[in-house]
Amino acid sequence: MNILYCFEACQRGRVISIVPRLARRSLQTAEYPSTLFKETSKFVKIKPVRDLKLSNAPDYISSPNSKLHALLWPGSLQNVLVTKKPWSCATKDAMITFINHLHTTYPEINVILQPDVAEEVYQDFLTTANNDPNRPHMLYSGTTDEITSKADLLVTLGGDGTILHGVSMFKSQVPPVLAFSLGTLGFLLPFDFKEHKEIFNKVLNSRAKCLHRTRLECHVIKKNDGESSVIHAMNDIFLHRGSSPHLTNLDIFVDGEFLTRTIADGVVFSSPTGSTAYSLSAGGSIVSPLIPSILLTPICPRSLSFRPLILPHSSHIKIRVCSKMNEKTGNNSVNISVDGVAQNDLEVGDEIHIVNEVGTIYIDGTQVPPSKKLADETLPNSTSKQRAGIYCIAKSENDWIKGINDLLGFNSGFRFTRRKQDN
Amino acid sequence: MNILYCFEACQRGRVISIVPRLARRSLQTAEYPSTLFKETSKFVKIKPVRDLKLSNAPDYISSPNSKLHALLWPGSLQNVLVTKKPWSCATKDAMITFINHLHTTYPEINVILQPDVAEEVYQDFLTTANNDPNRPHMLYSGTTDEITSKADLLVTLGGDGTILHGVSMFKSQVPPVLAFSLGTLGFLLPFDFKEHKEIFNKVLNSRAKCLHRTRLECHVIKKNDGESSVIHAMNDIFLHRGSSPHLTNLDIFVDGEFLTRTIADGVVFSSPTGSTAYSLSAGGSIVSPLIPSILLTPICPRSLSFRPLILPHSSHIKIRVCSKMNEKTGNNSVNISVDGVAQNDLEVGDEIHIVNEVGTIYIDGTQVPPSKKLADETLPNSTSKQRAGIYCIAKSENDWIKGINDLLGFNSGFRFTRRKQDN
Amino acid sequence: MNILYCFEACQRGRVISIVPRLARRSLQTAEYPSTLFKETSKFVKIKPVRDLKLSNAPDYISSPNSKLHALLWPGSLQNVLVTKKPWSCATKDAMITFINHLHTTYPEINVILQPDVAEEVYQDFLTTANNDPNRPHMLYSGTTDEITSKADLLVTLGGDGTILHGVSMFKSQVPPVLAFSLGTLGFLLPFDFKEHKEIFNKVLNSRAKCLHRTRLECHVIKKNDGESSVIHAMNDIFLHRGSSPHLTNLDIFVDGEFLTRTIADGVVFSSPTGSTAYSLSAGGSIVSPLIPSILLTPICPRSLSFRPLILPHSSHIKIRVCSKMNEKTGNNSVNISVDGVAQNDLEVGDEIHIVNEVGTIYIDGTQVPPSKKLADETLPNSTSKQRAGIYCIAKSENDWIKGINDLLGFNSGFRFTRRKQDN
Amino acid sequence: MNILYCFEACQRGRVISIVPRLARRSLQTAEYPSTLFKETSKFVKIKPVRDLKLSNAPDYISSPNSKLHALLWPGSLQNVLVTKKPWSCATKDAMITFINHLHTTYPEINVILQPDVAEEVYQDFLTTANNDPNRPHMLYSGTTDEITSKADLLVTLGGDGTILHGVSMFKSQVPPVLAFSLGTLGFLLPFDFKEHKEIFNKVLNSRAKCLHRTRLECHVIKKNDGESSVIHAMNDIFLHRGSSPHLTNLDIFVDGEFLTRTIADGVVFSSPTGSTAYSLSAGGSIVSPLIPSILLTPICPRSLSFRPLILPHSSHIKIRVCSKMNEKTGNNSVNISVDGVAQNDLEVGDEIHIVNEVGTIYIDGTQVPPSKKLADETLPNSTSKQRAGIYCIAKSENDWIKGINDLLGFNSGFRFTRRKQDN
Repeated sequence: MNILYCFEACQRGRVISIVPRLARRSLQTAEYPSTLFKETSKFVKIKPVRDLKLSNAPDYISSPNSKLHALLWPGSLQNVLVTKKPWSCATKDAMITFINHLHTTYPEINVILQPDVAEEVYQDFLTTANNDPNRPHMLYSGTTDEITSKADLLVTLGGDGTILHGVSMFKSQVPPVLAFSLGTLGFLLPFDFKEHKEIFNKVLNSRAKCLHRTRLECHVIKKNDGESSVIHAMNDIFLHRGSSPHLTNLDIFVDGEFLTRTIADGVVFSSPTGSTAYSLSAGGSIVSPLIPSILLTPICPRSLSFRPLILPHSSHIKIRVCSKMNEKTGNNSVNISVDGVAQNDLEVGDEIHIVNEVGTIYIDGTQVPPSKKLADETLPNSTSKQRAGIYCIAKSENDWIKGINDLLGFNSGFRFTRRKQDN
Repeated sequence: MNILYCFEACQRGRVISIVPRLARRSLQTAEYPSTLFKETSKFVKIKPVRDLKLSNAPDYISSPNSKLHALLWPGSLQNVLVTKKPWSCATKDAMITFINHLHTTYPEINVILQPDVAEEVYQDFLTTANNDPNRPHMLYSGTTDEITSKADLLVTLGGDGTILHGVSMFKSQVPPVLAFSLGTLGFLLPFDFKEHKEIFNKVLNSRAKCLHRTRLECHVIKKNDGESSVIHAMNDIFLHRGSSPHLTNLDIFVDGEFLTRTIADGVVFSSPTGSTAYSLSAGGSIVSPLIPSILLTPICPRSLSFRPLILPHSSHIKIRVCSKMNEKTGNNSVNISVDGVAQNDLEVGDEIHIVNEVGTIYIDGTQVPPSKKLADETLPNSTSKQRAGIYCIAKSENDWIKGINDLLGFNSGFRFTRRKQDN
Repeated sequence: MNILYCFEACQRGRVISIVPRLARRSLQTAEYPSTLFKETSKFVKIKPVRDLKLSNAPDYISSPNSKLHALLWPGSLQNVLVTKKPWSCATKDAMITFINHLHTTYPEINVILQPDVAEEVYQDFLTTANNDPNRPHMLYSGTTDEITSKADLLVTLGGDGTILHGVSMFKSQVPPVLAFSLGTLGFLLPFDFKEHKEIFNKVLNSRAKCLHRTRLECHVIKKNDGESSVIHAMNDIFLHRGSSPHLTNLDIFVDGEFLTRTIADGVVFSSPTGSTAYSLSAGGSIVSPLIPSILLTPICPRSLSFRPLILPHSSHIKIRVCSKMNEKTGNNSVNISVDGVAQNDLEVGDEIHIVNEVGTIYIDGTQVPPSKKLADETLPNSTSKQRAGIYCIAKSENDWIKGINDLLGFNSGFRFTRRKQDN
Repeated sequence: MNILYCFEACQRGRVISIVPRLARRSLQTAEYPSTLFKETSKFVKIKPVRDLKLSNAPDYISSPNSKLHALLWPGSLQNVLVTKKPWSCATKDAMITFINHLHTTYPEINVILQPDVAEEVYQDFLTTANNDPNRPHMLYSGTTDEITSKADLLVTLGGDGTILHGVSMFKSQVPPVLAFSLGTLGFLLPFDFKEHKEIFNKVLNSRAKCLHRTRLECHVIKKNDGESSVIHAMNDIFLHRGSSPHLTNLDIFVDGEFLTRTIADGVVFSSPTGSTAYSLSAGGSIVSPLIPSILLTPICPRSLSFRPLILPHSSHIKIRVCSKMNEKTGNNSVNISVDGVAQNDLEVGDEIHIVNEVGTIYIDGTQVPPSKKLADETLPNSTSKQRAGIYCIAKSENDWIKGINDLLGFNSGFRFTRRKQDN
C-alpha cells in the first residue's frame, strides 16, 4: 500500500543533501542540466537521447490457451530505458551490473537513463564494456519527453513504487515493463535480479509473455478554473478528509445515474491491480488483475451497509465534492491522492471523473470533461487504443496466486498444533 | 438469497393437496399425462407442442454506446413459453390476463405452457380470445424437451426464483427472458406486470434491450463413479458442512495451481449475478452483473485472513473434498447446493470443477472431466457459444444501481436527524 | 461520529461575526468579561456564580433488579447549569423556555450559564419570571472553575456534541447530566425537549434513574517535554496519519506486555459509549455502554488479520509512536483527536497511556506517567472514585436497543417485498 | 472452533472397536460397570470413589494489583480428578507419568478417574508407586455424580476439547482446572505437560493464580413439552439452519425488549472465552475473557447492517424460533449446538433463554423458565454464586495476548520484505 520512495542514506559514496536533489528531479521534465553531457569519465560517455531512433512498439499476441500475451518484436528491440529506486546502493550496484551486461553481450542495444539517474551512477562505473578501452559505456539521456519517445522497453530495478514512478513518466503509450526485485517482494515484481540475464534474453528474442494491466484515468475539474487535467493511476485514486475533523460528503454518479452519497473518511477507486493496496486495507475484496473492473471501497463510512462495490471497467464515474458533514463554514477541502501521490486538494463543487483507460462506454450523453482530454491527442486510432494499459512481463500464468499467498498471508490457518521446532 | 418457491394456499378455487402435485411435477420431465389433451373446456384447447415449428433464435446486437444488447428477431417471434410461480392466485390471474392479451392482440403467437401449469390454469379461463366463440384459447404443451426446443421467448410471472426455475429447464441455449414481477421485487425483475402490454410489444418489434448474464457450470465427479455430471448455476454453487459438527476441508486449485485449503463451514462460488445472494450474506463484495468474473467467498472460515476473492471468468476452478477437521472416522459428507437446490452430498475424494459457461481458458493441460460434457454436445460452434448465457430483457442501462439501493438498502445513512413526520 | 458544532446563522437577532466569538469562547476558561455583570435588562440580572453555595453531590443507588442507578438528592438540588449548542435559534428559544419554567415554578433553583451563553441569550428574555416585575430572571455566571464547583446538575440542550462539550468543562466529578434533544436524535439523548417539565420534576424529586458511563483517560507524554497531560474522552481517542502519505506505526502494550505493532492509517480506542461512533465506521462491534471495556479498532490496517479487540476496562494501554512506514526523513507526526477534537500532533518517541477513569489494575509495576495525574488531585478517596464517570439520566433500562435500531438501522432487512404505498 | 474429540487409533495396546465404547461412555453417568473393581493388576487397585471425603472447595482471593485470583486451600487439596483426551497414546503415557508422580511424591493425594478412563489405562501401569511392592496405584472411580462430589481439582491432559468435556461433567460448582497441553496449543492451555511437577506443587501449596471464566446458561423450552432444560456453555451456543435450504428466522429479545429478527443461516451466542471460537469465524470481535459480556454474532445474515453486538453479561436473552423464510410447509427445525455438541433440534415456537451463570439482572418481571432451574437447586446461597464459573489456573496475567498472537496470527504483517532465509 502507498508504495512510496524510501530514501536510504547511501552507505558508500558521497553524502548528498536530499532536498536540493529532489527539487532538481522535479525540474527534469522541462529541462535537463546542460552540464550533463560534459560530465564524463574514461569509462562512461553520456549522449543526447534525441539522437536515437524513435521507439519501436512490439505486438502483443493473445492466444486461446493463455491469459497472457506473447511479446513479439516486429522490428528489433533497440532502446532500453533503465530506472531505479533512488539512493539505494543495492539498486545502484544492480544497475551497473545490468548495463554492463547489456553493453558487453548486446552491443546493438542502447541504454537510456533519466538525467538524475545518469548523474547518480556514472562515476560508479569502474570498467568499460568487456574491459575494452575503446568501448566506454554509452548512456543516453535527455528530457522526459525525449526519453519516453525513444524507449522500446522499460526496465525497473527496485520495488513496486519504482514501477509506478517509471510508468508515470509516459503520457500515452507505455512500453512493456520488465521489473526486477532487489530483496523486496511485490505484486508487480515477478523476477529476482539474479535472473536478469536469462529473462532479458527471452524478452529480446520474443519469447516472453505479458500480463496486461489497465490504468484508471482521473479527470479533475476545479470549479473555479473550468479546466480539467488528467492523471493516470496504476493502483488507485483516493479521496480523504485528511486531518480535517469533518467527514467528507461525496456524491457519486455512475453513467450519469446517481449511485450514492458517501459520508465517510473517504473513498478509494482502485484498478484490480490496486485491489491489494489501499482498497484491501479499507476492506475491499482481492480482485485478479485480469478482471476488467473498477473497485469502489469506502474508507470508514458512516453507514453499516456500505459494502464494497465492483463496477464494470466500462463505467464512467463522476464524483462531486459536497459540503462536509456539519461544516457550514471554514475549511471544506478534500485530499486527493493518485497512486499514493498527493494532488491539489479539492473544494466544494469540484468534480472528478474516473474511467478506465480502455473500454469506457459513455451512455446517454455523459462524457468526461472535454478540455485537455489526453486520449484524444495521443491515442488517435484503434491500434493505439489496443496498446493502452501496461504490459508487464510475467513469470507464469498465475503469479497473482503466488502473490496473495506469499505476500499477503491469505487464508493463514490457526496454529493450534505445535510446530515441530517448538518441541 | 435462496430464492425458493412459496406455496401459498390458493384462496379462490379448489382446495388441492400439495404433496401429490409436487410428486407429479417432478415426473413431468419424463412424461406428461396423456390425459392432458383430453381435458378441455369450451374456452380452452390444449394441443401438443411438438406440432409447432422449431424455435427461432434472435440476434443480440452490441453497440459502442450501450452496455446492453439490442434484441433483434431475424424471423419473427412465434412461440412464447409462459411460466409462473406455482400455487399463487395472483400469478394465475396475471397468467390468464397475459395469455388473453396475446391471443386477442397477436393471433399469430403460440402460447406454450408446462403440462402442470396448463392443468393448473385451464379451468380458470372464463372467456375465449376476443370473446369470439370460434377462438378458444389454444395452449401448447408437451415434455420438457419438446417445450424447450420450440420456445422463442421465456416469459416468467413471479419472483427471481421463478426465473431460476424457468431457465433451469433448458439444457443448452436459453431463449431471451422477459420477467414480470407481481408484488415482489428482485434483481432479475425489471418490469412490473402492469407494463406487460407495452413491453411485450417492444420485444415483438425488436425494440427491447438485453443484459447478458453468464452462468457457472458445475461439473461433479464422484470418486466412486468416475462419471461426471454438469449443472448450470445462474446465481451460485455452495459447499457447506450442513448439520455436521465438523468443518469442511476443501483444497482449491485455479488453472491447475494450488490456491488454498479452506477450513470453514463452507465456501460459495458465485456469478456476478449471484453476488447479491448468498455471497453477500457471507461477506462478499457487490459485483456488477456486467463484470466477467467468478466470486469465491468463504463461509465462516477458520482464519482471520480469508478475504473474498474475485477470479477471472476464464478460470478453471477445481475443488477437492478432503477429510473433515478432526474427523478421522464417521461421516465426511459435504452438502452441495446449486442455485439453492441441494444436490447429492460429496464425499472425501470427490471433486467439482467450476467454470464459466463462456470464455474458459484451459492452461497447461487442465480440463474439465471429459464425460457428459454438456458444451460439446449442445453448443457445437462459435455462433452457439456466443449465445450461451442468459439474455435478460432490461429496463435501463443501470437497473443494477436501482437494485442495490432499493432492494439492499445499500449505504443507508444513520438517522440522527429526526424525520419530519416525527415532529 | 465526530459530533461537532453546527454553527447556524441565527435568523432572528443580531448578525454576529463568528470568528471573534470563538476566540472569546476559548478564553473563557481563564477570565470572563468583567463587563458581563453590567449588561442587564429589565428582565434579566446576571450575578457572580461564586456567590452560590458549593455543589451538592447526589447519591447513586444501585439495585439488583435494575441496570440503572436511582438518583437521590441527600440535600436538595439547588444549582442547575444549563448549556446549549451555540448559535442555534431553536436551542436559544428552548433555553429561554426552560429557564423561565425553572424561575416560575421552582424559585429556589439557581440557574447558571457560561458567560458567553449568558451574553448570547440575555437580550432575548422578554418577560420576567411569572410576569412579576419584581422577579427579573437571575442568572449566575463566572469562570469555568467557579461554575463547575457550583453545579449540582448539568442540563444540555442540543445534540450529542453539546453533551461532550458540556462534560468536558469538568476537571473531576461531573454532576448528573440531563440531556434534551431538539430535533436531533442521538445515543446520549433520551428525552425530547417537549418532556422537559415532567422530567425535571422527576429529577428534582429523586425519581429519576441514571445510566453510568465511564470515560477514558488519555495521558500524553511528549518525548521532549517529559511532561504529561491528561484528557478525558467520553467517546474515543484516535491516532491517524491525517494528510501524511505514510502509514502510522504504533507499538501497543497492554499491562506492560507487547500486544502488537499497527501499520495502518490509524487506530481508535473507544469507550463502549463510543462504540457507535468512529469505531463503528472503522469496523468495530457495537458494545453496550454497560460493559466495562476499552475497544481497540484499527483504521485501514495493512494486515488481513487485524480483527477489532475488546480489552478489559482494567487495562493499562501504552502506545508508542514509531517511525512511519517508509519514512526515514521528514514529517513523522501523527494526528491525535479526543472526542473529535484535534490535539497537538504526536512525534516519533511520544507515548500515550490510555486507561479507564475507574478500575484500572496496574500490574507488575506499570503505571501512568506520574506528573499532573488528574486522579490523585481530584478524586482523593474511594467515595469520589465511585462517582467518577458520567451519570446520564435515562428514560428506560434499554434506551440503547432503541438507539441501535432507530439511529443506526441495525440489521435492516432486504426489501424484496414491495411496500404497500408502492402499489 | 468446534473443539471435538479426535479418536486416534491407539498404536500400542489392544485394538478396540470404538462404537461400543462410545455407547458405554454415554451410559456411565447412570451406572458404571460393577465389574470394574474386580479388574485389578498387581500394580493397580481400583476402589469406589464414594469412600473418599467430600470435596474441599478452595477460596479465590482477588487483589487490587492483579486480574487473577489467588487459589488458596483453606483445608488441604486431597482428591484430584484426572481426565484425558480418549484414545490418544500420548495422553495415556502422560496420565501414567502424572499419576505415578502424584503417588510417589504426594502419598496423601487421592487420584480419581472416570470408569472408562480407569479401564483404558489400568493395564498400562507397569510399576507401583516408588517401586514399592506394597504401594500399588490406588485409583478411585464411580458414577459421575459420585466423582463430581469428591473432586477438589480437575486436571486435564489433552486439548481445549478435553477441558470443555471435563467441565461439562459438573452440574454445579466446578473445581479449579489445571490443564496441560500435549503438543496441541489452545487458549485454555497455558501449561506444557513438561512443567507438570512444578505447577502441581504450586497449586498444592496455594501459590497458583486463576483466571475466572464464566459460562452461559442455555435454557431450552420446547413448545410441546412446556419443560425446560438447562445446559452450560463455556464457549458458545449456536443456532443454524444446518442442511435446510431455508434461512432461520429468530426473534431475539433482551430483558424483555425486542432487539431484532435475524434472517440468517444462524446466530452464535458466545462467552468472551468463546470469542476466539465460532464467533470469530462468523466475523465477531476478539473479546478478552475478563470482560463480563455475551457476544451476539450473526452467521451469514440476510442484511448488510447486522454488525456483531456485545451485550452486558447481566442480560437475559430470549430467542424464539419463527417460521423459516419462504417455508410455509415442511421442515422448520433449527439445529442447536452447545460447545460444539449438537442438541435436539428446535421447532417453530420453541424458545431458548440465554443468561450468564452469574450476575443476571431480571428486569420488569422477565425470568428464565421456572422448571428445573439449575441455579435454584444447586447454588442456594451467595457464597456458592461467587464460586460459579470456571477458575482456570493461569500462567501469567495476560496469557490471552500471547494466545491471539501465537494461535490466531493476529495482525500479521504483509511480507513485502524478503525474509533472510530466502536469500
